[in-house]
Amino acid sequence: MAGAELRADVWINEYLSPWDIYSHGVTRILAAARTQYQDMQIVESGLYGKGLVLDGKWQSCTGDEFMYHEPLVHAACVLHGAPESVLVLGGGEGATVREALRWSSVKRVVMVDIDGEVVEACKKHLPEMHQGAFDDPRTELVIGDALGYLDDTAGEWDVVISDLSDPIEEGPSFALFTKEYFEKVKRALKPGGVFVVQSGPVSPPEIEAHARLASTVRSVFGASRSYASYAPSYGAPWSFIIGGPDPIDVPGVAAVDRLLKEQGVTGLRMFDGEAMQGVFSLPKHLREAIANETTVYTMASPRKFFGKNEVGAAN
Amino acid sequence: MAGAELRADVWINEYLSPWDIYSHGVTRILAAARTQYQDMQIVESGLYGKGLVLDGKWQSCTGDEFMYHEPLVHAACVLHGAPESVLVLGGGEGATVREALRWSSVKRVVMVDIDGEVVEACKKHLPEMHQGAFDDPRTELVIGDALGYLDDTAGEWDVVISDLSDPIEEGPSFALFTKEYFEKVKRALKPGGVFVVQSGPVSPPEIEAHARLASTVRSVFGASRSYASYAPSYGAPWSFIIGGPDPIDVPGVAAVDRLLKEQGVTGLRMFDGEAMQGVFSLPKHLREAIANETTVYTMASPRKFFGKNEVGAAN
Amino acid sequence: MAGAELRADVWINEYLSPWDIYSHGVTRILAAARTQYQDMQIVESGLYGKGLVLDGKWQSCTGDEFMYHEPLVHAACVLHGAPESVLVLGGGEGATVREALRWSSVKRVVMVDIDGEVVEACKKHLPEMHQGAFDDPRTELVIGDALGYLDDTAGEWDVVISDLSDPIEEGPSFALFTKEYFEKVKRALKPGGVFVVQSGPVSPPEIEAHARLASTVRSVFGASRSYASYAPSYGAPWSFIIGGPDPIDVPGVAAVDRLLKEQGVTGLRMFDGEAMQGVFSLPKHLREAIANETTVYTMASPRKFFGKNEVGAAN
Amino acid sequence: MAGAELRADVWINEYLSPWDIYSHGVTRILAAARTQYQDMQIVESGLYGKGLVLDGKWQSCTGDEFMYHEPLVHAACVLHGAPESVLVLGGGEGATVREALRWSSVKRVVMVDIDGEVVEACKKHLPEMHQGAFDDPRTELVIGDALGYLDDTAGEWDVVISDLSDPIEEGPSFALFTKEYFEKVKRALKPGGVFVVQSGPVSPPEIEAHARLASTVRSVFGASRSYASYAPSYGAPWSFIIGGPDPIDVPGVAAVDRLLKEQGVTGLRMFDGEAMQGVFSLPKHLREAIANETTVYTMASPRKFFGKNEVGAAN
Repeated sequence: MAGAELRADVWINEYLSPWDIYSHGVTRILAAARTQYQDMQIVESGLYGKGLVLDGKWQSCTGDEFMYHEPLVHAACVLHGAPESVLVLGGGEGATVREALRWSSVKRVVMVDIDGEVVEACKKHLPEMHQGAFDDPRTELVIGDALGYLDDTAGEWDVVISDLSDPIEEGPSFALFTKEYFEKVKRALKPGGVFVVQSGPVSPPEIEAHARLASTVRSVFGASRSYASYAPSYGAPWSFIIGGPDPIDVPGVAAVDRLLKEQGVTGLRMFDGEAMQGVFSLPKHLREAIANETTVYTMASPRKFFGKNEVGAAN
Repeated sequence: MAGAELRADVWINEYLSPWDIYSHGVTRILAAARTQYQDMQIVESGLYGKGLVLDGKWQSCTGDEFMYHEPLVHAACVLHGAPESVLVLGGGEGATVREALRWSSVKRVVMVDIDGEVVEACKKHLPEMHQGAFDDPRTELVIGDALGYLDDTAGEWDVVISDLSDPIEEGPSFALFTKEYFEKVKRALKPGGVFVVQSGPVSPPEIEAHARLASTVRSVFGASRSYASYAPSYGAPWSFIIGGPDPIDVPGVAAVDRLLKEQGVTGLRMFDGEAMQGVFSLPKHLREAIANETTVYTMASPRKFFGKNEVGAAN
Repeated sequence: MAGAELRADVWINEYLSPWDIYSHGVTRILAAARTQYQDMQIVESGLYGKGLVLDGKWQSCTGDEFMYHEPLVHAACVLHGAPESVLVLGGGEGATVREALRWSSVKRVVMVDIDGEVVEACKKHLPEMHQGAFDDPRTELVIGDALGYLDDTAGEWDVVISDLSDPIEEGPSFALFTKEYFEKVKRALKPGGVFVVQSGPVSPPEIEAHARLASTVRSVFGASRSYASYAPSYGAPWSFIIGGPDPIDVPGVAAVDRLLKEQGVTGLRMFDGEAMQGVFSLPKHLREAIANETTVYTMASPRKFFGKNEVGAAN
Repeated sequence: MAGAELRADVWINEYLSPWDIYSHGVTRILAAARTQYQDMQIVESGLYGKGLVLDGKWQSCTGDEFMYHEPLVHAACVLHGAPESVLVLGGGEGATVREALRWSSVKRVVMVDIDGEVVEACKKHLPEMHQGAFDDPRTELVIGDALGYLDDTAGEWDVVISDLSDPIEEGPSFALFTKEYFEKVKRALKPGGVFVVQSGPVSPPEIEAHARLASTVRSVFGASRSYASYAPSYGAPWSFIIGGPDPIDVPGVAAVDRLLKEQGVTGLRMFDGEAMQGVFSLPKHLREAIANETTVYTMASPRKFFGKNEVGAAN
């Protein structure tokens, strides 16, 4: 018997599955509101700094968000090479925009988030996240629906980043993990444009869902390339999928480091050539699951996360 | 607000820190005992199969143990090239021995575990873990103290694998994460021998402890090389450290795959050349923390895990 | 912020409602099995001694079971005055029988429990509960269905005690909280016989269910009388209902003490004349809810506990 | 196995002991602040309405606070008979004052609470608690230290109500559960005045602490009389102690009801003559523990709650 000295009284319980819970101890509640779209808290945790919580889901926190935002943004930008225009769908905390702005080639970043109340609260309480990104003259913030925005844009973007919360309820995010949505994204890209989508945990019970999303991306863009990083406060390795024309080749370590230097990308904490090689070199069972999957998520048959009970067994 | 449908009544709470808990829902208790050394349970979880729990710490489970045991064993064996003798210190479930036996070059595997009651319970209730490894004619099981065993062996081993539970209390494991212990291991190795030690989580608050352990390995063996894999049921990425003479170079993807084939290593789920490249390509902040660390754990000043309150902040 | 030093790793979570959990820290698991009827654990807790857990519900524990079993049995026996024959329906741990045997007038106690595996485990691991009651020559243990047993008995019993687990699922207990079941019980009683049924928590959200059960008892027996005791490990005050002909009058403090003495009832920890007065003197809101309720639970429309979502709001 | 559908993501964990936790599911956070004295949240729970939480301890909630505040106030007032002046020490939510104001004899209620920020938040977010009590012309609110206030008052009060949070840390409340404090209270009372103090849970592990507090009250006032009520959201029966000259006799049911009527006390939910009889008729083991205890809490040797580890075993 070991037990433990606990220091928190207030806990955010993340239900990773019906049998797995990650409890985040909260030392301070900085903001709490029911917005038009969701429950929101901004909290201080014991070891992971300040975090944003939406509908009970830990979105990101200052203690390890770099493990999520850096690979999300820079992998896509490296694969493009010299992005000028970047469209961020979702991304409430502003950290995704912050990373995109590090590229000297970038002239314009538009962020489209549906929940203005969340964005305002993040601006106020999470300066460590945005670090002034919303005030950069290259940034444009649009409060609105990602689907609607995509309908009004075509052939404009070098990089599109889908940084949406998981589709846990039959709410708006559901539609954004489907073939139809990806087709809108493809239409919005310039030739040679790169798409990246955060694609949820890849713990064994979640691998099938990831593989199906990769298959969906492939069905639209021609090729997909999955990678994974580990922000520990998520309690599971986290995945991303690149969509683009076949083949999607990851440059060598030295080439990546050289490109980042040329582009004046500084201040990174986890991402560089070696880290990029690491996140793209997936374990065999995950590569095989992705390669063998052919199911495609459509509006008629969308992705359903836990809460909607499409959870497999790991064993 | 989301909530969740939970299916378990009995939970194993892993206290990752005073503010972070991973709760494993238990669907069935297969064995429970207080052994001479520790509290033990063998349980069935909802999504991760059957797991071994010692002193409230999740040791490994059938649902994702391959993400731990495969890199632990095969990375060290690949770096050696053609191991004949393998010494496993700890390793109660038998899965570490199971992996070592996959190598056709291996003629002898000795496993030294202090807790015979745990080993017997694993033999009985976790056949998925050992898969008959204890019955292999090349396997020798010693119930006893790792330190004592090391005192009686010298220059005998191609690979030594330290697969011990974390030093959470000032108990026996404490001494096994120190310079003095590593010196005994070094003496036990043949020239050209390779040492690998499981070295705990590398979530941000734990990085310092990992770096210090790497520094300790380095101080004894000349060089260390860290790598990390994610068995999601641990709730954090897990690390390993290789000790050996400088430099410790990881072969290329194709070379690893060729060696595994030559050695007749089959049945792997996660490990191959690309996976090996992935686990050794660490994020920048982790590489830097390891490179910059000079503290050495000694018997006079040993490593102390949470429970002993040497926990830093991530942010 | 306060936090706490926790000493347990294994927890039994009692879901009192979708928003209320009582977590029992387990220091040792003495027995664990899936019987023909239910999941069973016998565990050691930190402060409440050894406890029996069925389907994740804390049944009773050595630390405070006297707060449940003493009022359950002795209130009914006092109201009868000189019981000779006592029928216990359910009562797996043997503590209900133990209490009945304290009465010198008692010549025969039959206990009918459906789950022989639970009874055997309790005999072995919970001697503090039965205290040899199963070996008393007046005791007869029947492993079988309460309904079936009632069909074969008529006009035989001075006291019938319904000590069944809560009807959390549409399982066998469901039928035992209905008008039809109570009618069978009434037929089994001698003239002047007294019936008592454990009737669940009476925290505000559960009061309606208690009141409906009282109304059901009333509809069969003519009168009901509710009382409540607090065994703290249940996390809520616990209720009982007496059924009998109108009026059911509680004797005065001195009269109860005199009767207990005459009957040679010794060794009680909580129950005496004053305690009996205390448990029967209910708060006003509870008395009013009971008096005003007219709903009757029938086989066609049975009582449904949380899990079946018939939970009201307290406020 | 049962499991449960949980509806909350944010939980307040009450550590009842190192092995017992009551988790309150929070559906909404109405206010959260670190005041000069403590952490405060005002939250909405699923079944128990809105609650005040201080330093992680559930103070009271709209769903069952009447089970606490009504017996706290009316038992003392009944024992006095016709109180004109009432002093409330603590009582942040205003519900204690609300109850005192129901007595037509009451001409003046002074409430002394140290934490003005908590009182302001309760005024704003918990109107169900105070119900305008702060605006009653008979009410005077003093933000300040109870000890200091007592030093400046003598022979003025018919009833003094100590409604303080538990002394969980060596903070200010500690001094308020000692002989020295009670002597100040006694000096403040008019001849014939009545003192009542909320005195914590009386679950088996807490009985010793209650008995010692009763012994302390006795040592100052001459006599003590304990009683207990059950507000289920506390997860344990809650106790109160009356201090006054020997004997402290509880009037009969009819006498209490007549007095309440004469005094115009209306709107009560749980308290009346029968309820008063119920809360004062304690179980035998509790009465005996109180009668046999002689330890007295002093400034040199104060009461220490869990957190300070003075917790006994129930079994």
